[in-house]
Amino acid sequence: MTGSARYREAGVDIDAANRAVSLMKDAVRSTYTPGVLADVGSFGGLFALTQLPARPVLVASTDGVGTKVKLAAQLGRWESIGHDIVNHCVNDILVQNARPLFFLDYVATSRLMPEAVAAVVTGIAAACRAAGCALLGGETAEMPGVYVEGAFDLVGTVVGLVDQAELLPKTERMQAGDLLLGLPSSGPHTNGYSLIRRLVAERDLQEKLADGRTLADALLAPHRSYLAEVDRLQAAGVRIWGMAHITGGGFWENIPRVLPDHLGAQVDVDAWPVPVLFQELVAWAGLDVQEAYRVFNMGIGMVLIIPAAAAAQAMQAEPEARVIGRLVSRSPADPPVRLVGA
Amino acid sequence: MTGSARYREAGVDIDAANRAVSLMKDAVRSTYTPGVLADVGSFGGLFALTQLPARPVLVASTDGVGTKVKLAAQLGRWESIGHDIVNHCVNDILVQNARPLFFLDYVATSRLMPEAVAAVVTGIAAACRAAGCALLGGETAEMPGVYVEGAFDLVGTVVGLVDQAELLPKTERMQAGDLLLGLPSSGPHTNGYSLIRRLVAERDLQEKLADGRTLADALLAPHRSYLAEVDRLQAAGVRIWGMAHITGGGFWENIPRVLPDHLGAQVDVDAWPVPVLFQELVAWAGLDVQEAYRVFNMGIGMVLIIPAAAAAQAMQAEPEARVIGRLVSRSPADPPVRLVGA
Repeated sequence: MTGSARYREAGVDIDAANRAVSLMKDAVRSTYTPGVLADVGSFGGLFALTQLPARPVLVASTDGVGTKVKLAAQLGRWESIGHDIVNHCVNDILVQNARPLFFLDYVATSRLMPEAVAAVVTGIAAACRAAGCALLGGETAEMPGVYVEGAFDLVGTVVGLVDQAELLPKTERMQAGDLLLGLPSSGPHTNGYSLIRRLVAERDLQEKLADGRTLADALLAPHRSYLAEVDRLQAAGVRIWGMAHITGGGFWENIPRVLPDHLGAQVDVDAWPVPVLFQELVAWAGLDVQEAYRVFNMGIGMVLIIPAAAAAQAMQAEPEARVIGRLVSRSPADPPVRLVGA
Repeated sequence: MTGSARYREAGVDIDAANRAVSLMKDAVRSTYTPGVLADVGSFGGLFALTQLPARPVLVASTDGVGTKVKLAAQLGRWESIGHDIVNHCVNDILVQNARPLFFLDYVATSRLMPEAVAAVVTGIAAACRAAGCALLGGETAEMPGVYVEGAFDLVGTVVGLVDQAELLPKTERMQAGDLLLGLPSSGPHTNGYSLIRRLVAERDLQEKLADGRTLADALLAPHRSYLAEVDRLQAAGVRIWGMAHITGGGFWENIPRVLPDHLGAQVDVDAWPVPVLFQELVAWAGLDVQEAYRVFNMGIGMVLIIPAAAAAQAMQAEPEARVIGRLVSRSPADPPVRLVGA
């Protein structure tokens, strides 16, 4: 984290900056798990590996939240974007069955905005606590001439752990008839925001949608983490053969990544109600079905592949989950994903 | 890494983009160490932990290269900036005696520039190979409206490993009379570039310095990694009690981070020749001595604290190293760093 020296240098209100730094430090410390060795302000974060599984594998992922940061900056909703980046990263390693050990953040802006950075970090810390993941380090950068005035970028890196025997996907266990279990999204998560920003550029963000939420609230709903859901399903004994995090490229690009060559996914798009926000966005943009399920998650943020026999058990453990399709045999000429009912 | 779909969508020359993506994938694979389990294109990178020390500690650090990216973009020198980010991160965990396991990158721009991104990643991969560090993952983001047109940012995260018993600094082993061993820098590394850019804004970057190098070459010399030097010193039996990577805040802020409260560092600034580039930059900016050694590394990129008895051994193992000062007793009223000879 940036110390007060940099703020002083930049002519920022030093008391406000010190409060912001202090807030950040408290937020960071609140995430510490027993593995954390170093305290805020030391060099690289230290994480002691104890109670390792038989064949420990680290799973790491770096990502940004894309141009959702522009909307967040415009509306001054800094904290929610912190949840976005953590949950996005946590889901990205969850699909390989890894549980997060620690997270690092990078926040860069055109000019130092201590309170905004502190709010972002506070959101990051809250999401890390919820995931049982230590916020081990971070960096704040002032980059005049690189970032558009008032704009910022937010990058996160998560490192998690899994026993090699538990790694997903297990494509060799998948078979025709296995079910696609969909877990609901909270909104567009962190995808499609360049299009969304164009669509809402002329709209009043306080406009109410048919579900009673404002456009602003609907668009900035934090990316949902599926850690607790997957934990509950596995604790209930539901075997999961693969998971697809529905991010950029939507259903078309993410589901095929976990499938073997001989199996395809048949998604029944009538199996869940498409949330109002997506109905509106698709209509405003004039997207066809193909495009809609590529740009947006359309209400499903994570797709799990489970044995057909596990359906009842899964629905009991996770009532929000829905069976949204199944695996079918596929010949080389067939597309890996087909939407039916659309 | 970004697939060709995103390039197609953005109307980028698809053949050029495919060549760039293929180049990147080859570069990434060239860094793979035996620990790497996944191949390019899968989800989060997988790194198997084997041959762990008795008490394994992961050391992680995230950083950017600051506004040096502006100069690199201006001069089209994409590859060198890849070396900068890797070496900066590797040094940041080296000071805790960690050796890098893997690295992840994030490259974001206002618009997709496949060849430039491929060049950055090629540089990253080369530096990773040199450090024995796998390039385990990365992300490329197009962020119109966030980044200034033609500008980009580059963020790296490194994760390394150290046995808890070998962690540095060992402040309890330090004593008055221990030596400060300086390792030469290759230039300003990644610090002071906002000032540097102002200083050279009106200058011809092809202008020759007194040492015969162009200003462009001198300013874009990649951040030097000290991994090999430290390996050689330790292999020769030189005990190191602490290391300070001279980055933002220079001598004043980085050396104190490894010192105990009762010891101060006395740096003899006549002990090494200040490279021509720094002499010029300091003169152009009119910096006083205090400021010069805060903004710039002034020719010393890493400071090691070693026992006085190890000096001869150290100089033999690493002829470029110089004794640049020593530890002295300090009372609470004394500053932790003093420059002498200035």
